[in-house]
Parts: sequence; structure tokens; C-alpha cells
Amino acid sequence: MRTGTLGPQQSYSERATKVWLELCGKKGEIVRFFDDIPDVFTALDEKEIDVGIVPIENSIEGSVGVTLDLLMEKDVTIIGGVVVPISHCLVSKGKTEDIHVILSHPHALAQCRQFLRKNFPNAELRTTGSTSHAARLATEFNEMAAIASEAAAKTYGLNVLLSGIQDWKKNETRFITMVASHNKQQTCVPQEKAANYKTSIIVYLDSDRPGALYEILKEFATRNINLTRIESRPSKRSLGDYLFYIDFEGTIDDENINDVISQIAMKTKKLKMLGSYGEYFA
Amino acid sequence: MRTGTLGPQQSYSERATKVWLELCGKKGEIVRFFDDIPDVFTALDEKEIDVGIVPIENSIEGSVGVTLDLLMEKDVTIIGGVVVPISHCLVSKGKTEDIHVILSHPHALAQCRQFLRKNFPNAELRTTGSTSHAARLATEFNEMAAIASEAAAKTYGLNVLLSGIQDWKKNETRFITMVASHNKQQTCVPQEKAANYKTSIIVYLDSDRPGALYEILKEFATRNINLTRIESRPSKRSLGDYLFYIDFEGTIDDENINDVISQIAMKTKKLKMLGSYGEYFA
Repeated sequence: MRTGTLGPQQSYSERATKVWLELCGKKGEIVRFFDDIPDVFTALDEKEIDVGIVPIENSIEGSVGVTLDLLMEKDVTIIGGVVVPISHCLVSKGKTEDIHVILSHPHALAQCRQFLRKNFPNAELRTTGSTSHAARLATEFNEMAAIASEAAAKTYGLNVLLSGIQDWKKNETRFITMVASHNKQQTCVPQEKAANYKTSIIVYLDSDRPGALYEILKEFATRNINLTRIESRPSKRSLGDYLFYIDFEGTIDDENINDVISQIAMKTKKLKMLGSYGEYFA
Repeated sequence: MRTGTLGPQQSYSERATKVWLELCGKKGEIVRFFDDIPDVFTALDEKEIDVGIVPIENSIEGSVGVTLDLLMEKDVTIIGGVVVPISHCLVSKGKTEDIHVILSHPHALAQCRQFLRKNFPNAELRTTGSTSHAARLATEFNEMAAIASEAAAKTYGLNVLLSGIQDWKKNETRFITMVASHNKQQTCVPQEKAANYKTSIIVYLDSDRPGALYEILKEFATRNINLTRIESRPSKRSLGDYLFYIDFEGTIDDENINDVISQIAMKTKKLKMLGSYGEYFA
């Protein structure tokens, strides 16, 4: 199985990928690294990889917008989820007092916003494709630091100046495991029982009608189906026009879920089924 | 009236602020510029300014997370909204073939993601507090470009290399005008009729109970109140625990709206009233 995720080595994405491979009994398999999230989707599209693993949501910073947009755009199916605990460190070749430039993924910078404002109000912040990429770049100059994991600091020979620097103690990122929808048979299925099983869909409502979203949620409520997440995302058509990303408990094998999806499909302009899958904790 | 927004000169925030001041009959009043969004909130808190204007949502990139978080955290009231059309340009002292570094606000970089991937796959992307700040920094080196407005290019003496580079033609940002909740009497009220009048609230639901969000939306639907926006945001407590930001048509002066708010307050763990206000188009 050819698996791809965000690199370089020691990214949180690699951590999620290793957990997934182990669940599938493929521990130690080679992982292919990509520079950013769109590259993982493209590689699935072009059959360069069979399985792609990308972050979709963080407990502090919220949704990963580009992942949500690409789930709508590309023909992929979600086959699993992995939740990884995140602990950000400030890592550098130099000393704390030398730091003028801080590198990291935009989400990691946002997760440490208060820390950065308080401790490095004048540092220049630069974005990178991943936290581990930031660590690799920070090896170049003493005045640079990266926000990355302790494991990344170790791999790239950097000092951990400060650890646990995110603004809220509890910090977790949820990753999704995807396959191209035309290539489902190539994949592995974890043998272990998941922490929970859920289904993800995208719906595009008639936004000019009051109560359109309410009518969708009613279908879930009357069937006692628990929504685990509902997120709006611009449809890109105009301000105030949204797609809704809805996650709920249960899988498409369940008659109740099957039923709710066919009801909702009749009440929306568009319904995209993203998949039913198990979610695991690292 | 002391008004503050994101600077420096020629930011889209300044554009929104000028529109607002003109609506209030205060055209030409001096505007105080801040480096980033938290600084505008802090200045309101500390009574350094009477009115603060910040971006809250873009039609391509979605919500401005930091603004949503601070609306929950700080004691402010929204008194107006201004929607500004956005047209991003690639601006630089140098030529297109020299560009190695591209600077802009993270949202502007995200709005031009496909453009950047296609045309500058190897450029280093650096984030700044605003698009106009990026333009100011880009005056330093020929190899730097900023994503900013044509007006910013003019102000900082840069060439417009390419214009309209955002990934979707239609691009608008919605700004909000806020006052500290303890300082409401200081403000101006636009005399002109708004394009629409709405109310914004934040609710924190009992997320363990299926149908909690449905019950809230039901209150709106049964009263035929149109929701203009619903956005979830992590509560920061744990993954899967959200606050909901809800905008709807009508103001608190309307009995129907007053009624829905008191009903919702009884069904939620927390309800924060952000304000009733008119929205204008630049």
C-alpha cells in the first residue's frame, strides 16, 4: 500500500500515518511525504498513492480550510480518522534571546498566538507547509526558531527552548485517512475496534429559505442521531452562501443512517457523501 | 470619536473604516492604525479608542478565527457592519521573474492559494499583520512581492505586476464596527438606511445531547427568522466541543427577536449577545 502525508519526517501527520499503518497491520511501511495538503489530494487523484492522510481539525484553531475545500472539490472517500495529541515546542539552534524569526505552519502559529504576542512581540513570523518543515528550515540560522514537536527537534538536531507553548493545555488534531473514490479496493481496514464510528457529508442548502438548515437537523433529531460536528464553509459563490460539513454518529450500514441520508438528499441542492469510518486515538 | 483599525494606510480595514466614518458624518476624521486584530480589541478595552473596526469573514477563506475568539473573550458590542470588495494584486519593486519571497496576511495568501501554487511554487511565503503592511515591507527588496491592493501599491511606490489574482473572481470581506460594552454612548449611528439589519449571538450548547443545535434552530424556524450565518468554533475545551456563532435578520427592538433570544437563553449553557446592527456595502 502506498501511503502519503505531509512531511517532512516527524510531522504530526507522520505520527497519524504511523498509527494508521499499525492499525492496518502494516507497521514500518514506507510513507511518502508531500509539501502541502493539496499535493496529497493530487497524488491520490493521479494514483501516485493509494491512501492519503491529512489534518482536518484542531481543538484550538478549528477546521483546516484547505482540507474542507478539497474534500468538496476532489473525488475522495474518507476511510478512517486518527486523533493525535499536539504539544508544541519552541526549537532552535540558537538561544531564546537571539530569536528574531519564528517559523511554523499557520495553524501552529495560531495555536500559540498568545504565547507569541507575550514573549516574542517583535519576531517576524513566517509560515511553512508543516511544523517539521519549519524545524528543518530552522537549522539554517541561530536567530531562527520553529514551533514544532520535540521529536522534530531531535531529528533535526535543534534545542527545545520551551515546551507546551500552545495557548490551551489540551491540544489535539484530528486527521482523516482517504482514498480516491475510484480506487477503494486497494485499501486496508483496521482490525481493532474504533473509539467511535461516524459518517461525514457535505450539504449545499437553498440559503435564501429560512429554516433550510433547521429542516436538515430535524431529520437527525427525530431519528436520535447525534451530530458530532457541523461546520459552515463559504461556497465561494458570494458572502453569506455556505456549504455545511456535517459529521454524525453511525455508519451507512445502519438502516437509520441510510434513511436519513436519502431524506436529506431530497431537501438539499447538493449532498456529497464523504464516507463512513472508524475514528482512533493515537 | 477615536477610531482604530488594522494598518498601515491603505489596508482594506482602512477602506471599511472610511466608509463607516462617512456614514456617521465624520468623513476625514483621523484613524488610528494597529498592527493586528488583538491590538484593536485591547485598545477598546483600555479606552484608547472608542470604535474598533476589524474583519470577521471573507467570501473565499471564511471566518477570521482570531476575531471570533476575541468576540467571545472581550466585552464588546457590535454596532455596525461594512462589506468591502477585495481585489488582490501582486505588487513589487522588482520584476515578476525576480520574486522569491511573497508577503501578505495569511487570509490573502489563502485566497490566492491556487494562483501561488501555479505561478510561484517555489516562492517563500511570509505572513504579515495586514496586506498593506506586506506592501510596506516589500519596498525593501526587489526579490520581494506583496499581495495587496492597488491603492497600497500606489501609496508605497510599488509596481502592480498582476491584478485580480484571487482564486475566485468574487471576493468580499465583511468588517464589524465595535465599541466596548461599557462605553456605548460615545458612538455614532449612521443616518443612512442599512442594506440589512441583523443580530449576532454566540451560544454554547450542551454538546453531549443529540438535537441541542436543532432545538435552537427550531426557535428561529418557527418564528420565520432567517439565519444569515452559523459558524462553529472550538470551545478550546476539547475536540468536538463547540461554540456556535449565529447571525440572523432583525434587531433586538423587534419583539419577535427579543422573544427568540430569551427562549434560546433558557436552552443553552451560555448565550452571549454581540449586538443588533445595520450592515452597509462599500
